[in-house]
Amino acid sequence: MTRGGTAALPPEARAVLAGDRAALARLITRTENDDPTVDPILRALYPRTGRAAVVGLTGPLGVGKSSVLNRLVGHLRTEGVRVGVVAVDPSSPFSGGSILGDRIRLDRAAGDDGVFFRSMAARGHAGGVARATREVVRLLDAFGMQVVFVETVGSGQSDVEVHSVASTSVVIVVPHLGDEVQSMKAGLFEVADVFCVNKSDLPGADVAARYLTELAQLGAHGAAWVPRVVQTSATQGTGLPELWAAVRAHEDYLDAHDLRRSDERRRLSLEIQDLVRERVDRRLSEAWTRDPELRRLLDEVVARREDPHSAADRVVRRTGLRS
Amino acid sequence: MTRGGTAALPPEARAVLAGDRAALARLITRTENDDPTVDPILRALYPRTGRAAVVGLTGPLGVGKSSVLNRLVGHLRTEGVRVGVVAVDPSSPFSGGSILGDRIRLDRAAGDDGVFFRSMAARGHAGGVARATREVVRLLDAFGMQVVFVETVGSGQSDVEVHSVASTSVVIVVPHLGDEVQSMKAGLFEVADVFCVNKSDLPGADVAARYLTELAQLGAHGAAWVPRVVQTSATQGTGLPELWAAVRAHEDYLDAHDLRRSDERRRLSLEIQDLVRERVDRRLSEAWTRDPELRRLLDEVVARREDPHSAADRVVRRTGLRS
Repeated sequence: MTRGGTAALPPEARAVLAGDRAALARLITRTENDDPTVDPILRALYPRTGRAAVVGLTGPLGVGKSSVLNRLVGHLRTEGVRVGVVAVDPSSPFSGGSILGDRIRLDRAAGDDGVFFRSMAARGHAGGVARATREVVRLLDAFGMQVVFVETVGSGQSDVEVHSVASTSVVIVVPHLGDEVQSMKAGLFEVADVFCVNKSDLPGADVAARYLTELAQLGAHGAAWVPRVVQTSATQGTGLPELWAAVRAHEDYLDAHDLRRSDERRRLSLEIQDLVRERVDRRLSEAWTRDPELRRLLDEVVARREDPHSAADRVVRRTGLRS
Repeated sequence: MTRGGTAALPPEARAVLAGDRAALARLITRTENDDPTVDPILRALYPRTGRAAVVGLTGPLGVGKSSVLNRLVGHLRTEGVRVGVVAVDPSSPFSGGSILGDRIRLDRAAGDDGVFFRSMAARGHAGGVARATREVVRLLDAFGMQVVFVETVGSGQSDVEVHSVASTSVVIVVPHLGDEVQSMKAGLFEVADVFCVNKSDLPGADVAARYLTELAQLGAHGAAWVPRVVQTSATQGTGLPELWAAVRAHEDYLDAHDLRRSDERRRLSLEIQDLVRERVDRRLSEAWTRDPELRRLLDEVVARREDPHSAADRVVRRTGLRS
């Protein structure tokens, strides 16, 4: 495949490349719904991706993530940068909808062709979220967005997985680091490239920033990149250029140390392995529901005449999943 | 295998069945460390398991989970019930240790042979935690514990997976349901069999209990079991018999509706599938690091001459993982 002509591409892929927002929105919905007919389109667009900087934004509820993001997008738009946003929301307990659905979201997006915002429910498997997010980021990338933000709530497995999409990860906190920070997925702290202390107009912001700076130096273990710490106040609109400068500094660092390609290689390696697992899972589920021999094997385990490990060995042999 | 004589068992298995606490502790450590030499022992003990009631306890940080558990264990000990506890802790960001390690833990366990307490770090894969937890629960079960509690912090994927071990799941909250509840893994709400409003001496406890009762009725969707809501104050020692009665009521419900076996069948089915996945993953990782052809394939994907989905199809064919 070449990056050249578009004549051979499916019409939906051509529409996205031509800047058709409605076509983009429809493709994202189909991707989110796991519509298999979207696969050839995503495959066709893949060679046109890999140009956008993908910036992960995460942090506990209530730190003002959306406000920071809103301001950051505004800042980038004044610089003429085209921006995509994917917000991954936790699903609400019973409605199947989105807890955060009622939040006012990036009003500035309305009427500005240089911004595309999409909220996605974090339903189903964590792996599924990471996969859908990855593909939606690619669609925004192919659409020509130069920066794509991926916003998640820092309290679950999906964050760490979604992080695997980003070239730069920003973790947002507020001056009073309480239980919320403790309950954040610990791994997120380790993957942060930039810490943002929002609500810096509140007392304690300097202390928090110093504390994070120390943590960052500790965590860097002598690595060339020491996570930067910046203070913002999204409500007052301060610190946003500094936050963006910190993100840019990390992006520049990736380029200067020739890490962009190796990072991407690592991410793609994980992605392919995930996709392989997905295929094997499908085969396993099918065998599990259809094969009466496997049902009998389960009976034996329930009756404690066979143990789960021996049963797993038998399944591997029986389904042809060589191990 | 029979549940009869123990002569044919490995000596470590015999020691556990004979009530040797030190042998139990060593086996748990080996299980937690993924020591493969422990597998034959776990397999040998499997037929001697399945008798304990396994009760999951989860909830956000700061709701007093450990205090409730401590009191509940005390209550059960006055009734002469033998109790095991597995506490799954989130790992701390940098030390690799345990955030909660400094908490005072179940002092009453000291010197009481009818209680065995074990704290486990939630490090590594969420799947790994579920697997290790499952095996440790079985060891406690084989050791003769009649009730095994599994305590987790309600803020991650591992909780929902660990839940899959329990026959009854208790979710603990406090009167003021704030952001913490929102950030709890939504799925946990759906799997709760019993809600416990702890710190019921604080204002708002009745309101919270009513709210949860409504949620529970909504969530039950006309099912035969409607999650019970109880109020406790672990510091004042009130409500614990009622909490235990609610757990017993759910256990009785399982028996009365012949659900215990079908629930266990479902759990074992998921476990075997997990174990199969683990075996396949191992094969995949080996191929991925050793096979130069797969490295070249990755090069093609990085260069955007091949897309990740096509690459995954090739890997499946090449590694003999039929899909």
